[in-house]
Amino acid sequence: MPESNQSPSDIRAFCFDVFGTVVDWREGIVRDARVFLARLGRADIDPHVFADAWRARYQPAMAACREGRRPYTRLDILHRENLLDVFTQFDIDASIVPEHEHDWLNMSWHRLDPWPDVVEGLTRLKTRYVIAPASNGNIALMVDLAKRAGLPWDAILGADVSRQYKPNPDSYLALADVLALRPEQVCMTAAHNDDLAAARACGLRTAFVPRPGEHGNLQRTDLEAEQDWDIVATDFIDLARQAGC
Amino acid sequence: MPESNQSPSDIRAFCFDVFGTVVDWREGIVRDARVFLARLGRADIDPHVFADAWRARYQPAMAACREGRRPYTRLDILHRENLLDVFTQFDIDASIVPEHEHDWLNMSWHRLDPWPDVVEGLTRLKTRYVIAPASNGNIALMVDLAKRAGLPWDAILGADVSRQYKPNPDSYLALADVLALRPEQVCMTAAHNDDLAAARACGLRTAFVPRPGEHGNLQRTDLEAEQDWDIVATDFIDLARQAGC
Repeated sequence: MPESNQSPSDIRAFCFDVFGTVVDWREGIVRDARVFLARLGRADIDPHVFADAWRARYQPAMAACREGRRPYTRLDILHRENLLDVFTQFDIDASIVPEHEHDWLNMSWHRLDPWPDVVEGLTRLKTRYVIAPASNGNIALMVDLAKRAGLPWDAILGADVSRQYKPNPDSYLALADVLALRPEQVCMTAAHNDDLAAARACGLRTAFVPRPGEHGNLQRTDLEAEQDWDIVATDFIDLARQAGC
Repeated sequence: MPESNQSPSDIRAFCFDVFGTVVDWREGIVRDARVFLARLGRADIDPHVFADAWRARYQPAMAACREGRRPYTRLDILHRENLLDVFTQFDIDASIVPEHEHDWLNMSWHRLDPWPDVVEGLTRLKTRYVIAPASNGNIALMVDLAKRAGLPWDAILGADVSRQYKPNPDSYLALADVLALRPEQVCMTAAHNDDLAAARACGLRTAFVPRPGEHGNLQRTDLEAEQDWDIVATDFIDLARQAGC
């Protein structure tokens, strides 16, 4: 089992990527997309392909905000815009989709399940550290996920507080700023090496927790730590253990 | 016991004023000011008078931000600036106060105790509603209060999210906005009639919980509801009961 490279004793807060790291977004979207597509009479569409197509539009949509081509716009709105494009991609006539079905499917991002180790790991970490999501998801989305799954966050941080999408440096620096901590007192935790690299560049500490099932059986990325992150843990329970909880 | 004037069935979130409504700021500041003044050899200063003098500078400091005379500035910083003025008022030479003592006293706002009914009431409300502070205190301050006292917030809302101080209308409207709710689905809860009047003017629902001990034995304001607030409760446990929890 990988051990911590440095003592985590200075860390005061653990902040978490959410989609992929805390919750299994893909199987959650698949579950609801399957229901949606069946009701629409389009059971011919593979819900995994549908979910991946929706997610593929996530980074380009945020890039428009990051690059200043549009003002900060909440992820719920970006998801809904992207869904219209996905309808087009799969030859679904958006005009025949009832508004409440469209809304219901868009809200599937609020109904994602955590990986099985998450609630226990977070509950243990919370005894000694501030724990908060550092997600591109908006506050309402994060609150719904937390209430549904019992995620015991101390605060909801991330894009709706910093009004910046990761990996913009201000999105990481804002975590320390609002918690009145120095960057090195905040540990960014993610299943994605690129998220951690951006956090490290801002002076944050880093913890990697692999989620080899995030993209299903064919996952080829983020199967292991690609830098000497401050902590490399097998799951959130191991992370809590390494953090002394 | 006053009963609800309207069914609270549409309410999805309860947002709370904190200083005075959730925590007893005055006795908390007095406790630490007494220690500070004794260490400084100034036990001649009444810590209640000292606490009231510090708090008296709270609204004027925020007014500068509300009125655009300075950008949004966190309450921790305003408290520290105000403390320097209080030192002058009580003829304390700030230059002889060690920096760590100055910081420690300023952090007394992070060490306030909740009223005795708060944790039970919030815990019950959380089972059916989103609960969040809607305070002028910054996120770090709210997180410290919550972790110390076990306040089970779903999110930390308020000035550090809206970047507006109450009673600016945007400070109330932002509560609904970030929770993806309509204003009438959010119930502002406070021990202060003026806070509720400002929230009602923005379309929020309102709940009054009197805290007749907030200002000590001589309190003459906010002893009772001054409008027909949607809910008038004796304490947070009664509030939870009236809200069906």
